[in-house]
Amino acid sequence: MIIAETHFQKELEELKENLLKMAAMVEEAIRDAVQSLVRTDSKLAQKTFEFEDRINTMEMAIDGMCLKLLALRQPMAVDLRFITSAMKIVTDLERMGDQAVNIAERAISLNQEPQLKPYVDLPQMAEIAESMVKDVLDAFVSHDTRLARSVCERDDLVDGLNDQVFRELLTYMMSDPKTISRAVHLVIIARCLERIADHATNIAEDVIFMVDARVIKHHAEANGDAEEKNIS
Amino acid sequence: MIIAETHFQKELEELKENLLKMAAMVEEAIRDAVQSLVRTDSKLAQKTFEFEDRINTMEMAIDGMCLKLLALRQPMAVDLRFITSAMKIVTDLERMGDQAVNIAERAISLNQEPQLKPYVDLPQMAEIAESMVKDVLDAFVSHDTRLARSVCERDDLVDGLNDQVFRELLTYMMSDPKTISRAVHLVIIARCLERIADHATNIAEDVIFMVDARVIKHHAEANGDAEEKNIS
Repeated sequence: MIIAETHFQKELEELKENLLKMAAMVEEAIRDAVQSLVRTDSKLAQKTFEFEDRINTMEMAIDGMCLKLLALRQPMAVDLRFITSAMKIVTDLERMGDQAVNIAERAISLNQEPQLKPYVDLPQMAEIAESMVKDVLDAFVSHDTRLARSVCERDDLVDGLNDQVFRELLTYMMSDPKTISRAVHLVIIARCLERIADHATNIAEDVIFMVDARVIKHHAEANGDAEEKNIS
Repeated sequence: MIIAETHFQKELEELKENLLKMAAMVEEAIRDAVQSLVRTDSKLAQKTFEFEDRINTMEMAIDGMCLKLLALRQPMAVDLRFITSAMKIVTDLERMGDQAVNIAERAISLNQEPQLKPYVDLPQMAEIAESMVKDVLDAFVSHDTRLARSVCERDDLVDGLNDQVFRELLTYMMSDPKTISRAVHLVIIARCLERIADHATNIAEDVIFMVDARVIKHHAEANGDAEEKNIS
């Protein structure tokens, strides 16, 4: 029994390592996509596409690992929640990868035209979003709800920057219709970064749920344990 | 043992019913949000907000049901996959609800201004997206991969309409800067519908994975079983 326990713990460690590895790839994919725009270097965007392939492969592999653990180890309580949360998290990570690809594609288009404006807010949004991805996975594997909560808080910063980018680009579009096509690309890049931050926030909520078995989602903190709620 | 089996089957049926109920709410939330725009009726948008509340409650409740089933019934093979897929699906459904709310909010803003153009493509996109939500959940509960594949195919229609809407609105913006603010709202509404269709497609891929234990995600059909893949 003790041997099986130890083996299970080792498998959980392996799962954690793979999740961290996948998250690091997602961070890198975001960074390359945005830096490709900032440095007008479309080759960097290519790296994002390569990362996406590896991210997709990891999603499927980790999903398979989790199913195997559920079937063979029949975990309970905290371990059960950890594994089902991991399955949701890889979905979020994979979709962040998709958003990075979306950014990379638009960066390549934009790099072929004169730069509309110096890019200041977008790299800042990207940096915050990357830090959210890193920290939320660290929070997950170390069951650190304080770190998870700090990720939720950073989401507001990203939302604020997104609004700011949007308003600024609207001014460009209004004053010169020739900027519209580039400005729309940039608006959508900002939205992609905002969505990445949303995914990180979703994971942070899952982490808090997993650790506290409480749901902070949907501002339902006051309502107590969701599992007790009736379905109406 | 037979009694336990029957009880488990009953619980699975209940889970299926709740998933279908949640999907029906999501459909309704999308329909009300888009119709609120088409009929310039902001009261309808209000209904979307109410649906979102109920959708969020159902997400948490179904998630709780699934955890309980995993812990108490320790299901294997097809049942295990069904339950873990259900947990991913409720996340997708909840995010579709968020997109519907996003549409409803923009509809309310747009309803306060003169209508930019007759809305033809957006309601069509919404209708296809709603049919995808309905059919993909039917496919899930009845293990119908043919229906799931037809959902994946419809995603291309929605993407095509999204591109069409985008190009048309770009023309409006270019020729009259006064239209930009409204046009951007409409571009984002189209993107929300496209994202809803993406979520439905994600579920469809999960259904096919669950039934066939094959991954069609990431165009990896040719690569065989993802669970066998190495993590690099």
